[in-house]
Amino acid sequence: MNAIEAMINRTSYRSSYKDTPVPRGDLVKIMEAGLAAPSGSNKQTVSLIAVDDPEILARLAEVTGPLKYQPAPAIICILTQKIPAYKGRHFNVQDYSAAIQNILVAAVSLGYESCWYEGTVKDDDDQGKQMADILGVPADYNLISYSPIGIAEKPVKFPEKKPFAERAWFNGFQKSE
Amino acid sequence: MNAIEAMINRTSYRSSYKDTPVPRGDLVKIMEAGLAAPSGSNKQTVSLIAVDDPEILARLAEVTGPLKYQPAPAIICILTQKIPAYKGRHFNVQDYSAAIQNILVAAVSLGYESCWYEGTVKDDDDQGKQMADILGVPADYNLISYSPIGIAEKPVKFPEKKPFAERAWFNGFQKSE
Repeated sequence: MNAIEAMINRTSYRSSYKDTPVPRGDLVKIMEAGLAAPSGSNKQTVSLIAVDDPEILARLAEVTGPLKYQPAPAIICILTQKIPAYKGRHFNVQDYSAAIQNILVAAVSLGYESCWYEGTVKDDDDQGKQMADILGVPADYNLISYSPIGIAEKPVKFPEKKPFAERAWFNGFQKSE
Repeated sequence: MNAIEAMINRTSYRSSYKDTPVPRGDLVKIMEAGLAAPSGSNKQTVSLIAVDDPEILARLAEVTGPLKYQPAPAIICILTQKIPAYKGRHFNVQDYSAAIQNILVAAVSLGYESCWYEGTVKDDDDQGKQMADILGVPADYNLISYSPIGIAEKPVKFPEKKPFAERAWFNGFQKSE
C-alpha cells in the first residue's frame, strides 16, 4: 500500500481480531519498519519483542486488560533504553514514538490493524514491568508500550478530528497563504 | 511509494537541496500525513506551519544554523501544545514524534528528503522561540522541531545501525523462536 494512503487509513483499532495467524515474515517486515525510524544521535534506544506463542500471549493477557477482551494473534512489545544523546539529553520517548508510528503504518500497509497502548502500561499496577518479567526483559530496558497485530474482525472506525485548516498553515500562525 | 519501502529509504538528510520548489499540493499531502498520526486520547496536540516564502525562509535561516548551510525550498515547523490526556498525563512528545515520523516518511514517498531537527531547536539560544516569533506563534504553542523538505542535491547516506537480531526478538528477550 502507498505510504500516505497507509498513514491516512491507520486508526486506533480497539476491537476484536480474527484468529488468522500473522506470518513471521510479516512480523519481521513490521519490526524492520519500526527499527528503520530515526533515533536521536543514532542511539538506537528501541528494541522490540514480537509475541505469537499462544501460551505467552495468554500470560500477557492476564496482565493487560485490553488484550483480555481483544485477543490478537500477535503483539509487538516496545522496549526503550534511556541512553544520553545530543548534549546529554534524552530522546528515547521521541525514538520509541517514531518506531511505534512506523510499526502501526507498516501493519496497516500489510492489511492488519493495530493500536498504540501506552497509558495503561504505565498505570499504578505497572503492567509494563509485569509484561517485561514474563518476557525475561532485564532492568535496563523498559517495556513502555505494546501493539496488537491482526486482521480486524469488526468495522474499523476513525475518531473525529479537527479540520486541516485548524491545525496546518502556511508561512505564519493561522495563515493560509 | 510503498509504505515500508519509504520507511526503509528514509534517512536523516543533512546536506544541500536543489532549488526546485515543492508544490503546495505536496506540502498539503505531507502535512495531512503528519496530522493523521494518532495522539494520546485524541487530543490533537500537534499543529504545523509549512514555510515556502523565500523571505520568511531567509529570516528563519538567520536563526537556525543548519538551514543557513543547507537551504531547502520549504520547511515544516512542528508546534506542540501541552494538553492533559489519559489520567491527566501528557503525551504531547509522543504525539509530535509520531506526526514528525509520518511527515518524514511521506516526504520520502513523494521523492523528497528531510531531517528531524529538534536538539538544536532547544539549545540555549532558544531557536524554537525565535522561529515562533517570526511566524507569529502565540505563547501556548511551542515550536519544538522543524523539517526541511526538498529534493536532495547530494548523495543520500544511511547511518550504520545494529543488526536486526540485536534489537528485535520473538517471544522473549533476545530469543529468536
